[in-house]
Amino acid sequence: MFDLTGKHVCYVADCGGIALETSKVLMTKNIAKLAILQSTENPQAIAQLQSIKPSTQIFFWTYDVTMAREEMKKYFDEVMVQMDYIDVLINGATLCDENNIDATINTNLTGMMNTVATVLPYMDRQMGGSGGLIVNVTSVIGLDPSPVFCAYSASKFGVIGFTRSLADPLYYSQNGVAVMAVCCGPTRVFVDRELKAFLEYGQSFADRLRRAPCQSTSVCGQNIVNAIERSENGQIWIADKGGLELIKLHWYWHMADQFLHYMQSNDEEEQE
Amino acid sequence: MFDLTGKHVCYVADCGGIALETSKVLMTKNIAKLAILQSTENPQAIAQLQSIKPSTQIFFWTYDVTMAREEMKKYFDEVMVQMDYIDVLINGATLCDENNIDATINTNLTGMMNTVATVLPYMDRQMGGSGGLIVNVTSVIGLDPSPVFCAYSASKFGVIGFTRSLADPLYYSQNGVAVMAVCCGPTRVFVDRELKAFLEYGQSFADRLRRAPCQSTSVCGQNIVNAIERSENGQIWIADKGGLELIKLHWYWHMADQFLHYMQSNDEEEQE
Repeated sequence: MFDLTGKHVCYVADCGGIALETSKVLMTKNIAKLAILQSTENPQAIAQLQSIKPSTQIFFWTYDVTMAREEMKKYFDEVMVQMDYIDVLINGATLCDENNIDATINTNLTGMMNTVATVLPYMDRQMGGSGGLIVNVTSVIGLDPSPVFCAYSASKFGVIGFTRSLADPLYYSQNGVAVMAVCCGPTRVFVDRELKAFLEYGQSFADRLRRAPCQSTSVCGQNIVNAIERSENGQIWIADKGGLELIKLHWYWHMADQFLHYMQSNDEEEQE
Repeated sequence: MFDLTGKHVCYVADCGGIALETSKVLMTKNIAKLAILQSTENPQAIAQLQSIKPSTQIFFWTYDVTMAREEMKKYFDEVMVQMDYIDVLINGATLCDENNIDATINTNLTGMMNTVATVLPYMDRQMGGSGGLIVNVTSVIGLDPSPVFCAYSASKFGVIGFTRSLADPLYYSQNGVAVMAVCCGPTRVFVDRELKAFLEYGQSFADRLRRAPCQSTSVCGQNIVNAIERSENGQIWIADKGGLELIKLHWYWHMADQFLHYMQSNDEEEQE
């Protein structure tokens, strides 16, 4: 269980759709500070959020998740002046453009990882931080392949691989930063857009998707916050059909016995 | 079963380690043409390959998998002058640099996808090609997370998501291009290098890995070719411990019944 009361939350995402709905729910949780880092200004959304809970401090910065790591470091040095510390980092910046593989991967995967690598030292218990939680808001097609959105699916598979790797006890036991992901099923805001399939053979499927029955973004946002509150390190949740499901993670590779024995043996054994 | 006899094979990878060993085995299969696209020249390796089968034409081009899509198109237009057509595209360019997330993702994932998107039209049955096979040579930590190499694992998870998505019958039934992946377990050439963990807490594990007992690259290369010859569209193989295993793919998301019903219904039903 993760108690959001009094927490300093940093949300990286365009404050529309799922991110806005999730932020609305966060504002009902007595958090102390909410930093919103997004690509464009959206003062109406900020005002709407502030009206939910006037005592929570909201900060806003324009943020390009694809900026270079060196710039990102300088950027967060400034963010930290206002935030003091970050308890929760939520990564929700997302792009689905099958015609632009680079932009899709850079936004959804590389940008998210660079953000995490930049923010982690501020959260790390061994580096003066207090530990905390990193939440990757991603998609069900990061778990299962997509017949239509090949690049998007690849980027979201990457998010799952990164989340599961960084959640390893090797890191968590040292830095105290738990990592989790919430995979959203199709929402109205996603399928409402004009979406291009990776190859034109998939386009009729993509077009069809636009009129599919989907969960509302507000219910999805509520369930993302539910998942955060119920989270333990390394968990992956599915927020779909208006519900929330904790998934059982599958492992494929049976590490060679000899290899496993070696990695588990201590140095003395090794030198015998 | 995929018969390599007389085929035109294009191998994108540095011609050392696994790629060289795999190419040696390919040269014993009576292929007609082998194009090697790699970042640096390696005339010794080419000579060694040619000596295995003098009648197979080998072409070599320096290739940067991270080049822009527009350049890539021009590049392959030139490659096709020599190759006439491509039956098999093998993607094996790989980088593991946890200090450089961008380069790792760009090489392993974005560059591979851009290459595939560029080459696919030449192979596509509906665009004058003859269909064929795309082989992604990747890693077991694209299937399971890595406690040490978070960025590398993310990139390789992405490769699996892309492979599974592009193998969808929606595409394969139209373009006749099968897609598969072979996930290599740890090999000597991988663990021999100095490898940095994503966070320093993992470094002792990474160092330890360097002296771990691993399969040889030559056996791994043999098994990659075995997998290619035995492949069917959408299959994912593990080449580890000197063996080859076809994995059973796991699905996590139970698509909402209403959504599934909608996507499967035909247009007449929809208009009722």
